Amino acid sequence: MREIGISELRHIARGAAILGTGGGGDPYIGRLVAEQAMREYGPVLAAELHEVPDDALVAGIGMIGSPSVMIEKLPAGEEAVTAFLTLQREIGRPITHVLPIEVGGMNSLAPLPVAASLGLPVLDADCMGRAFPMVQMVVCTLEGVLAKPLSVADEKGNSIVVDVSDNHWAERLARSAAVGMGCTALMCSFPMSGKQAREITIPGTLTLASRLGRRVEEARRDHVDPCEAVAAFLGGEVLFAGKVVDVMRASEPGFAKGEAWLEGVAAHDGAVCRLAFQNEHLVAIRDGEVVASVPDLICVLDAEGEPVPAERLRYGQRVVVVGAPCHPRWRTPEGLALVGPSAFGYSHEYAPLGTP
Amino acid sequence: MREIGISELRHIARGAAILGTGGGGDPYIGRLVAEQAMREYGPVLAAELHEVPDDALVAGIGMIGSPSVMIEKLPAGEEAVTAFLTLQREIGRPITHVLPIEVGGMNSLAPLPVAASLGLPVLDADCMGRAFPMVQMVVCTLEGVLAKPLSVADEKGNSIVVDVSDNHWAERLARSAAVGMGCTALMCSFPMSGKQAREITIPGTLTLASRLGRRVEEARRDHVDPCEAVAAFLGGEVLFAGKVVDVMRASEPGFAKGEAWLEGVAAHDGAVCRLAFQNEHLVAIRDGEVVASVPDLICVLDAEGEPVPAERLRYGQRVVVVGAPCHPRWRTPEGLALVGPSAFGYSHEYAPLGTP
Repeated sequence: MREIGISELRHIARGAAILGTGGGGDPYIGRLVAEQAMREYGPVLAAELHEVPDDALVAGIGMIGSPSVMIEKLPAGEEAVTAFLTLQREIGRPITHVLPIEVGGMNSLAPLPVAASLGLPVLDADCMGRAFPMVQMVVCTLEGVLAKPLSVADEKGNSIVVDVSDNHWAERLARSAAVGMGCTALMCSFPMSGKQAREITIPGTLTLASRLGRRVEEARRDHVDPCEAVAAFLGGEVLFAGKVVDVMRASEPGFAKGEAWLEGVAAHDGAVCRLAFQNEHLVAIRDGEVVASVPDLICVLDAEGEPVPAERLRYGQRVVVVGAPCHPRWRTPEGLALVGPSAFGYSHEYAPLGTP
Repeated sequence: MREIGISELRHIARGAAILGTGGGGDPYIGRLVAEQAMREYGPVLAAELHEVPDDALVAGIGMIGSPSVMIEKLPAGEEAVTAFLTLQREIGRPITHVLPIEVGGMNSLAPLPVAASLGLPVLDADCMGRAFPMVQMVVCTLEGVLAKPLSVADEKGNSIVVDVSDNHWAERLARSAAVGMGCTALMCSFPMSGKQAREITIPGTLTLASRLGRRVEEARRDHVDPCEAVAAFLGGEVLFAGKVVDVMRASEPGFAKGEAWLEGVAAHDGAVCRLAFQNEHLVAIRDGEVVASVPDLICVLDAEGEPVPAERLRYGQRVVVVGAPCHPRWRTPEGLALVGPSAFGYSHEYAPLGTP
């Protein structure tokens, strides 16, 4: 196990926000909450998957709701702990390890206050290898691990337990709860054994986020283009560079849905690019052609390589769009059925990025 | 304790639907569900409040959602049992008595499948003395008894537990859950001791509903106007007789909200009456003047004295509107604050019916 201290949080937050493809919660807020908990309770131990005993009881933590709302309705900081304790009480056995349900600026850090305050290790892994907007969009669903039970907690100490035997229904009922709680809340679910976690979850993504976040700072220091550095790190490519000329947003119940239009600059002068998002960026359409699509990663960065969350996109911003391959698990037929274009209502075929 | 058998169900359903003031669920569906359970498990024992031991554990059962939806999305029949067992598991002790949360065509009967299948007595009492649309609108709220925990279950066996320390929040989160479940579900909550139930709940309302339902049949047999008989039974008055000329409905998330316009016939020829409802009838406005208002009862009947649920109002129907006094508990300042006109966004003053 290795120690994660306060100084590493900014690297994880940045890297995870890039991997979070516009969603996964605001990295700045996520960092503040984790930092506060670490100042109070000390650093956190991160365990690699091979260090988890077979009979460990592992649970995932993450935010649910609309990131657009969370940048105004700030978390109180105790939500994840409330959700964790509610789930633990419901299960009736001590949970021994926590992990992020997804990689995201806030979500990679969401388990840290629980880990710090309760003295539990956090697993260096997650259930998506990126961020997706819905509860069922996890590798757990592919392997039959249920979001059962699932707890949701808000900043007032309210909590809900959802008990259903289908991850799509878990999404539906947990989303309703999150909407009732004011459109953002923290959830805890996917209880699994250490053995299951080892076999199912995507390993090393906390460390990956940390390395990626650090890589951006190194690129700046070395006068390398940080966006190109991100693309190279992820095995992807720069798809577009432009400025935001319009953003359309709707708080579709429980999500931040919308589209952003970009006009090209520099190498992309004269071209246009449209980004469609539902918490995360789902599709990038350049001059009428789909150039990147879920489940591949569509990362929007500013010129300094800082990730721009979808909820922070605004008129006039200069941004760079990087596309990168997703975890291979999502490129299988069952993976694509769960998180591919058709899962979001799109009819285009998925064309994998980063492969020859 | 007295036995409630299948033959009494039609009386209870009718009387409770009248007392349910347009809401409380469809009496026909409620009766079918209860009848089915009794055919399978036998009759149910109804206990009067004085028969309940101090240390009994009592819980209320009722439907939550939009009655308009339930007449198309029929209950499976097991919802109340699922909600009951979920609450019992959450509390960790056996619940010994069930009672209807409110009086209503479906809601007065909702605890019976639980009572029949688990062999528990049902209390001859409820928490409203009529029906109201929201979770917090119970005498329990006035006495500090919380809807904590609260369980919600649907026809697919899905369940949710809400854990909040405020009955308004319980409403909000349980309503969200019910909407997620498809706008109708069954809930179980307000756990209290036998002593609390005796001191707080409104006694005798199952028997009252049964007597009222029977009174309608007697009036018909005796060639007495059944609507006048209902008004006399309730100490109220006939406010209007007319035909429905328009109905406006919206499924405001989780409720059946709307208005109905009536044109007068017979003694009310030339007059108009407007009924505003949110599951239950809230206000009757005759020729521009409020003639009855929550928390008093506004009961809509057909010429035979059969209650017409708000979700069954339709163009061309001949109906009679009866107004009647509510339970005195609701006429106190704190009662009016919880369920009076202002609780539904109205600015009119409450003028009690049936008092000189």
